[in-house]
Amino acid sequence: MVRKHVTIGVDLGGTKLLAGIVDCEGHLSSLQRWPARVRDYDQSLTAIADLVTQLRREIEQRGDTVVAVGVAIAAFLTADRERVRDATNLVGWRDRPFRAELAARVGLPVVIENDGDAAVWGEYTHGAARGERCVAMATVGTGIGGGVVIDGNLISGGSGLAGEIGHLQVVPSGRTCGCGARGCLEAYASGTALAQAARAAAAADPVGARQLLDRAGGDPERIDGPAVTALALEGDPLSRRVVAELGEWLGSGLAQVAAVLDPSVIVLGGGLVDAAGELIVEPARIAYTSALSIRAVRQVAPLRRAELGNAAGLVGAGARAAAAVAGLPTASAVD
Amino acid sequence: MVRKHVTIGVDLGGTKLLAGIVDCEGHLSSLQRWPARVRDYDQSLTAIADLVTQLRREIEQRGDTVVAVGVAIAAFLTADRERVRDATNLVGWRDRPFRAELAARVGLPVVIENDGDAAVWGEYTHGAARGERCVAMATVGTGIGGGVVIDGNLISGGSGLAGEIGHLQVVPSGRTCGCGARGCLEAYASGTALAQAARAAAAADPVGARQLLDRAGGDPERIDGPAVTALALEGDPLSRRVVAELGEWLGSGLAQVAAVLDPSVIVLGGGLVDAAGELIVEPARIAYTSALSIRAVRQVAPLRRAELGNAAGLVGAGARAAAAVAGLPTASAVD
Repeated sequence: MVRKHVTIGVDLGGTKLLAGIVDCEGHLSSLQRWPARVRDYDQSLTAIADLVTQLRREIEQRGDTVVAVGVAIAAFLTADRERVRDATNLVGWRDRPFRAELAARVGLPVVIENDGDAAVWGEYTHGAARGERCVAMATVGTGIGGGVVIDGNLISGGSGLAGEIGHLQVVPSGRTCGCGARGCLEAYASGTALAQAARAAAAADPVGARQLLDRAGGDPERIDGPAVTALALEGDPLSRRVVAELGEWLGSGLAQVAAVLDPSVIVLGGGLVDAAGELIVEPARIAYTSALSIRAVRQVAPLRRAELGNAAGLVGAGARAAAAVAGLPTASAVD
Repeated sequence: MVRKHVTIGVDLGGTKLLAGIVDCEGHLSSLQRWPARVRDYDQSLTAIADLVTQLRREIEQRGDTVVAVGVAIAAFLTADRERVRDATNLVGWRDRPFRAELAARVGLPVVIENDGDAAVWGEYTHGAARGERCVAMATVGTGIGGGVVIDGNLISGGSGLAGEIGHLQVVPSGRTCGCGARGCLEAYASGTALAQAARAAAAADPVGARQLLDRAGGDPERIDGPAVTALALEGDPLSRRVVAELGEWLGSGLAQVAAVLDPSVIVLGGGLVDAAGELIVEPARIAYTSALSIRAVRQVAPLRRAELGNAAGLVGAGARAAAAVAGLPTASAVD
């Protein structure tokens, strides 16, 4: 029997930690979700190492070989992809040599990548953007990430921050963003912004927000993003409106990305898009198309949902890890 | 004596037609400016062919060889760089096979490029962005062009429109732009916008605008961009204010470009920046720095003036033409 070479992909977001096995065709198996919320650096390191150990055992029981670990992180990384420079949704990570520390713990080659960059790489290699020349992606979850692939290269930029679509300014002097600037797309179209918008709508219109308030035990401050999405899917008008407005902000931000990059395709992913689907994508598409500049001659890049869904980051991280070790002599790559 | 191989670079803007000889080190000589304004397609073709013939004679008299012609055009080109798809500032160009028609007229290989793309290529190969990994450039003239070079590749995008920085939206539902969209940077920070802003300022404050009005024979509608720039350089307060506001718009647009691309350097060029210099660049730098997102961890890309000045497009077009024929067997490339 031929031993398959696989990687372990990990996705650490603001509110979730996922891990799974990724094969060379981008197929994901044995998806694990860490049961608790991890925010702290040491907690995360231990949790990720535990997940890797568990999945490695499973891989070896199958008779396959794990060649590397790829971790997608919702954070701004150093350009050399060794450390986290800053993360608005993670605590205690700043300037810790995470890549090397995790590699030492698990005894495997480790690659770390920004989650938006990992996601676009996943969709480009194995998802909705296969074979496309110029791909832009936005991942909408707790925050908004993004990434760009041009002619088969993941674009990292001068200091490793290319593709941070969530930090495009959509409202001059607008809402304060976690990044320190004002009016960023993330402050209008992320899961965090969704919850805030729903709370404001509930405060302004308690009658229209009855269902939302019921689900939050009557306290507007306890309304969270998943409740809004769930009620929108059930047809609650106020929740639908708040979700649609988020989609419109997203679409107008994507028109800006199109002005700079002229992508051949734009992919929308992340947990919120995965959950709300067309309730976000349809208003995003309308706003995107109507805000596009140079319309007379532009071939409008289609706006597609991530084929890998919320697993794009995890699969992409695994694929990056596989590519990174392909050229390296590692013990586990020889069998 | 060694025969030098050179190209002829041409730059056709909304209000100017320039041509000159470009050597392999990016040095420009024999710069010619066509004395009249050419807008019409046939007129332009004839004028460019005349300039090429004249410069070719000069090159051959020197004992050198012209290997190709590169033309930078202020227009949206087809992705294959054969035709002009549309041009807000040129008349009668739509869908004419300009590259082939000019090549037939002059009997030399011809390369055509969008003017912003040619300019960033000029600055990357021979100017302010030599050796930089990720370069964004804005060219400010009658309109606003732009281009992007990443890892040595000129980025063309899915349909040939990448780097159109002038068509970033800076004001949601703002001024109508020549491209058909609203709120584009070009509608706030181009030479055309400068003249409009000065006319509006003069109408609102005829006393403060006395110098401007004097220069326009008392008619606010006859105020043009060059007059505003000239008076600003002479210290006229109202003209300075209008020019500075243009710089601020430009800077806030460039912060958007930085959010998407994270460039290692941003270059500002074009006729208006060449003429007004720091009167535009300084306010642009301040607005750019203050509007940047993810400031805590970002290495702020320096904002530099084009080293090649207003010749960046012409030199870049010549350099693109030289690169294009380097791999081609052409009669003139053999001596």
